[in-house]
Amino acid sequence: MLIVKKFGGSSVANAERVKNVANRIVESYKEGNDVVVVLSAQGDTTDDLIAKAEEINPNPSKREMDMLLATGEQQSVALMAMAIHALGVPAISLNASQCKIASSSNYGNARIKNINSERIFNELDRKNIVIITGFQGINKFGDVTTLGRGGSDTSAVALAAKLNADLCEIYTDVDGVYTCDPRIVKKARKLKEISYDEMLELASLGAKVLHNRSVELAKKYNVNLVVRSSLTNAEGTIVKEGSAVERMLVNGVAVDKDVSRIAIIGVKNEPGIAFKLFSMLAKAKISVDIILQSIGRDDKKDISFTVASTDLNDALKVMENNKDRFAYEKIDHDDNVAKVSIVGSGMATNAGVAATMFEALYNENINIRMISTSEIKISVLVDKNDADRAANAIHDKFMLESEVR
Amino acid sequence: MLIVKKFGGSSVANAERVKNVANRIVESYKEGNDVVVVLSAQGDTTDDLIAKAEEINPNPSKREMDMLLATGEQQSVALMAMAIHALGVPAISLNASQCKIASSSNYGNARIKNINSERIFNELDRKNIVIITGFQGINKFGDVTTLGRGGSDTSAVALAAKLNADLCEIYTDVDGVYTCDPRIVKKARKLKEISYDEMLELASLGAKVLHNRSVELAKKYNVNLVVRSSLTNAEGTIVKEGSAVERMLVNGVAVDKDVSRIAIIGVKNEPGIAFKLFSMLAKAKISVDIILQSIGRDDKKDISFTVASTDLNDALKVMENNKDRFAYEKIDHDDNVAKVSIVGSGMATNAGVAATMFEALYNENINIRMISTSEIKISVLVDKNDADRAANAIHDKFMLESEVR
Repeated sequence: MLIVKKFGGSSVANAERVKNVANRIVESYKEGNDVVVVLSAQGDTTDDLIAKAEEINPNPSKREMDMLLATGEQQSVALMAMAIHALGVPAISLNASQCKIASSSNYGNARIKNINSERIFNELDRKNIVIITGFQGINKFGDVTTLGRGGSDTSAVALAAKLNADLCEIYTDVDGVYTCDPRIVKKARKLKEISYDEMLELASLGAKVLHNRSVELAKKYNVNLVVRSSLTNAEGTIVKEGSAVERMLVNGVAVDKDVSRIAIIGVKNEPGIAFKLFSMLAKAKISVDIILQSIGRDDKKDISFTVASTDLNDALKVMENNKDRFAYEKIDHDDNVAKVSIVGSGMATNAGVAATMFEALYNENINIRMISTSEIKISVLVDKNDADRAANAIHDKFMLESEVR
Repeated sequence: MLIVKKFGGSSVANAERVKNVANRIVESYKEGNDVVVVLSAQGDTTDDLIAKAEEINPNPSKREMDMLLATGEQQSVALMAMAIHALGVPAISLNASQCKIASSSNYGNARIKNINSERIFNELDRKNIVIITGFQGINKFGDVTTLGRGGSDTSAVALAAKLNADLCEIYTDVDGVYTCDPRIVKKARKLKEISYDEMLELASLGAKVLHNRSVELAKKYNVNLVVRSSLTNAEGTIVKEGSAVERMLVNGVAVDKDVSRIAIIGVKNEPGIAFKLFSMLAKAKISVDIILQSIGRDDKKDISFTVASTDLNDALKVMENNKDRFAYEKIDHDDNVAKVSIVGSGMATNAGVAATMFEALYNENINIRMISTSEIKISVLVDKNDADRAANAIHDKFMLESEVR
């Protein structure tokens, strides 16, 4: 088997952990597999480099920032090659330039466009374990780029797709994908399988296991993805095509406490208001999640929406600055809210799911502030204090703790 | 003018110093010069990375070590570009891969073979200050190499040669080349000019200002070299073709305390002994400096030679291991010695120089243990305790403190 294994920064944070990971990699190699490893920068390296840069220039150029940050992964891969050599196994490290990971030009948030697999296959033919820098590419100018948040996951999946790997293993500090965050719902159960689409919904709902772009890429190229623990040998969760996954009515509950609600009270009840508002926010690169518009009364209406809490101040500023473009009575905001969602690919064909979810919340006397639905998910906005109780109630109601329901 | 400026690791050790150096660079740019900057890794970065590697593998592969160490310079150049941007001046950093610094294959001690100047000239045309990683190259396999000790000086001179620069400025923590180490000889005077050949002798004699390879390269391509202080604006020392330099009888005194003397007593007085001995040492990569062979008496003779103190144990081991290849009575060694040398391109045509030097030592009652001469230098081995006194006596005798003698 050809296996791509990705380890994050905390898995290689110090010499001890690098050696542990080297042992796991060598184990898989000795079972007869061709092994390609993708690594992030060690521990806090990236944050330390950013701090160093900002000490010199509070507003550093993105091109130079990428040049700086890319060194973190290069250090990781060289050290890992040394650790594998110490176990008597051949290994070689390669950076983005050496495997010609071509990316788009936008520094800090580039997209992988192509990978030249020749060097990698040559090194595998020489029986080397090949260790590749995650998170980076080379653009058409020959400059170093980085791929943004979750970039190393994306590197691993892109390599697995390009090399036609049998498996892409993402090692993290959790041992798989759970029906809910085990810190919130004690009865949460680890899933054996989940579909790409469900994983996408869970990731965007704050489940923080895999980055969305990597899952989208895995779906596009049908890469067999496994999420596993870098600390234990426990079987992980397989992420694969929906048709191959048992269609669960509801597969998981996600809780996202980093949301804020903004309400614009008393805007004119005329066409184009929502368009103006949300295109302004889009221009400022602020993602809007749940949107709710009141039915207009007389000549006025209200619009509410949620944004990530980190974007709250920027969003308020955008609206303040554009007050003359559309009149409103007042703006109201609340960051004391949380989003609780259920995800499941069987949901689309079953009308009762939403009602069951709302019933669970009603029984707990939890007030629903906003609702949003898609083909495979239902999200509700509740008070932040109610979030954990809501998640548990829903988890219980759908009996997610048991595999057979 | 097109100027190449090289700054060492201590000149860019922290944010403060990076900003200072950025100011100096921008000053030169604003005078209308095209500026190419070559940097080493910050402060102790290289040593820290080596320590990190050795914690993981006590005997790390040289290829992976180069992959690891090259990140140090990449960090320096990115940070310097940011610092120059903060002053409102355009700048771009380039690594060895981006300027295609082709090197030989030998990791850890590679030689620059060629540089593709296209990208550099393009960036200069765009009015950028171009900041390039010193100390590194890319070999024919596309792998990262490093150039060994003094590598960044060599990178700077090679770039100056390739770009046909008008000037190559090497910034160090001293403000030029002195007639002797000012810490040893208080009256030591800074030289305005020195020839490539004299600089080569001084460098190999322990003057530690410029690395030999960079001076050899400067001589070969006739690069105008200046050694200047990175801390003050003092004029430095110009290193150039001998014919252009006033031919001083003696231009400087060098002291090297890191030498050890080895004596092999009572080897057979037959041909081939010296050959066997020194080829063995060469095979072990041990450089031998002064060699002295006694006139054979009966069938036995003695051979003495000096090595760098760091090589003493290795040299003794080599001889111990090869005891059966040539018999000797005993081996004697002494690391309580120092080498004191005078250098001057006028020396070759003036017979009295050696006598004057020996007279200075005789007057101070300093015993000479070994003597070695070349066209432009005379070295003597003395007791380590006598070294500073010897240097001062010679400096006085030749009146090196005064420019006109």
